[in-house]
Amino acid sequence: MPILNKDMTLCISLSARPSNNGTRFHNHLYEQLDLNWIYKAFAPTNLEQAIAGVRGLGIRGCAISMPYKEDVIALVDEMDPSAKAIDSVNTIVNTDGRLKAYNTDYTAIEQLLATNKVPTSYSVLVQGAGGMAKATVAALRDAGFTDVTVIARNETTGRALAEQYGFRWQAALDGGTADLIINVTPIGMAGGMAGGAEADALAFPQETIDAAQVVFDVVALPAETPLIKAARAAGKPVITGAEVATIQALEQFVLYTGVRPTVEQVRAAEEFMRAQ
Amino acid sequence: MPILNKDMTLCISLSARPSNNGTRFHNHLYEQLDLNWIYKAFAPTNLEQAIAGVRGLGIRGCAISMPYKEDVIALVDEMDPSAKAIDSVNTIVNTDGRLKAYNTDYTAIEQLLATNKVPTSYSVLVQGAGGMAKATVAALRDAGFTDVTVIARNETTGRALAEQYGFRWQAALDGGTADLIINVTPIGMAGGMAGGAEADALAFPQETIDAAQVVFDVVALPAETPLIKAARAAGKPVITGAEVATIQALEQFVLYTGVRPTVEQVRAAEEFMRAQ
Repeated sequence: MPILNKDMTLCISLSARPSNNGTRFHNHLYEQLDLNWIYKAFAPTNLEQAIAGVRGLGIRGCAISMPYKEDVIALVDEMDPSAKAIDSVNTIVNTDGRLKAYNTDYTAIEQLLATNKVPTSYSVLVQGAGGMAKATVAALRDAGFTDVTVIARNETTGRALAEQYGFRWQAALDGGTADLIINVTPIGMAGGMAGGAEADALAFPQETIDAAQVVFDVVALPAETPLIKAARAAGKPVITGAEVATIQALEQFVLYTGVRPTVEQVRAAEEFMRAQ
Repeated sequence: MPILNKDMTLCISLSARPSNNGTRFHNHLYEQLDLNWIYKAFAPTNLEQAIAGVRGLGIRGCAISMPYKEDVIALVDEMDPSAKAIDSVNTIVNTDGRLKAYNTDYTAIEQLLATNKVPTSYSVLVQGAGGMAKATVAALRDAGFTDVTVIARNETTGRALAEQYGFRWQAALDGGTADLIINVTPIGMAGGMAGGAEADALAFPQETIDAAQVVFDVVALPAETPLIKAARAAGKPVITGAEVATIQALEQFVLYTGVRPTVEQVRAAEEFMRAQ
């Protein structure tokens, strides 16, 4: 690490239970790119005071995680379309005291649908109704997808999510199939807060995987979920949650610094991030 | 430096024009003492928001410099006697959201008068009427000195300072002498914001130095001011501004961390601080 000095630009994250990922990822990129910047995660005691501190201390960037992604909306000056599309903020950029809010999860999903050239004529099944499901459904709508079904056991949240973006809701898959199948539930997630219990479970049954053209698992840990493994085994193109996680973190970095690191630099930062 | 991580405790400074001294001094001590702490200077855009940030982000310690030492009083929860004695704050300690304010300049001067066993029966001349002069005069009063004269060209501030602590004011030295002579003006200070113009000047005339028992120069840069050099040449015991600066920074460190470094550790941190 560089010798700490007064001129370092600070970026932070606000989360009830911070991981060490952002701190390691961003600081490693700063070092690689020879930027006099510093990054640190915080578990704020009070969100409003913490955001006041972002302004008053001239903190350049601020990642927002659970449970602050919606509460923070009232505290910023401007909502980028990426945040407005899903009423959820995961990134704040402070330019001379003006706070603009973004959602790079939305941006990452939008990018991945585009770079993987998924035809918007595809039928889509989205399993899940949480915050990432909202980012996914909004990105699908904004990309031009029209045949989308949200599958969620909870009717209240599932139906509301689907209808907000003009799509259908179903309580269960019921043997359904689609060209693009997307998992946004913790099924297949490695142990931790939300995951663990269903770490070995397949998010979609084998016959749904076999009928799909593209399989997208938004779960980022492990990089190879049971769903991704099964899709690869069936010869299907896949989009992984690890890609979402990388792009959303990279886009935060670019928003803060204005610098776009190379693929190799991002890979090195991710390796450093994981080597804890 | 250690690898930056989410669990590091943050201490900061707030100043309109931060130097790099605090950042280098504290971080070097953290490293020597293997503390998972980090320190960075800030030039806040808004004091009230910055202090809200100290609370909301759980920042443990906060050094206060010009021009915030008085304005910050309204923003803290409790004033230590060291800050109350001079209505001036240079240190805030955040314990579970409760902000307690101190003034370690006062503490340092109080300590130096005691450790140098300066008799409280001594007559004292204090030249200067700024913030450090106030800390000096208050420390003299609280230590039990009674025969103190404040010398300051500006009658308004000079007389007010002297009378607040029950002492005399004089506009000029006029050939005066005393047992303890103290310079708290920028006379003899190396180039910089306040000093420079009178860098080569003697703060007291030679005959006043010759008549003194102890010579105290609160000017910290250079460590050997013309006054200190002349006093040493005349065989007088001296107290230097460098000692004040070291003790005030050390006491901040102790207030924040609860750890008292050794003399060698402090010396190493100071050497690192100066090696810019």
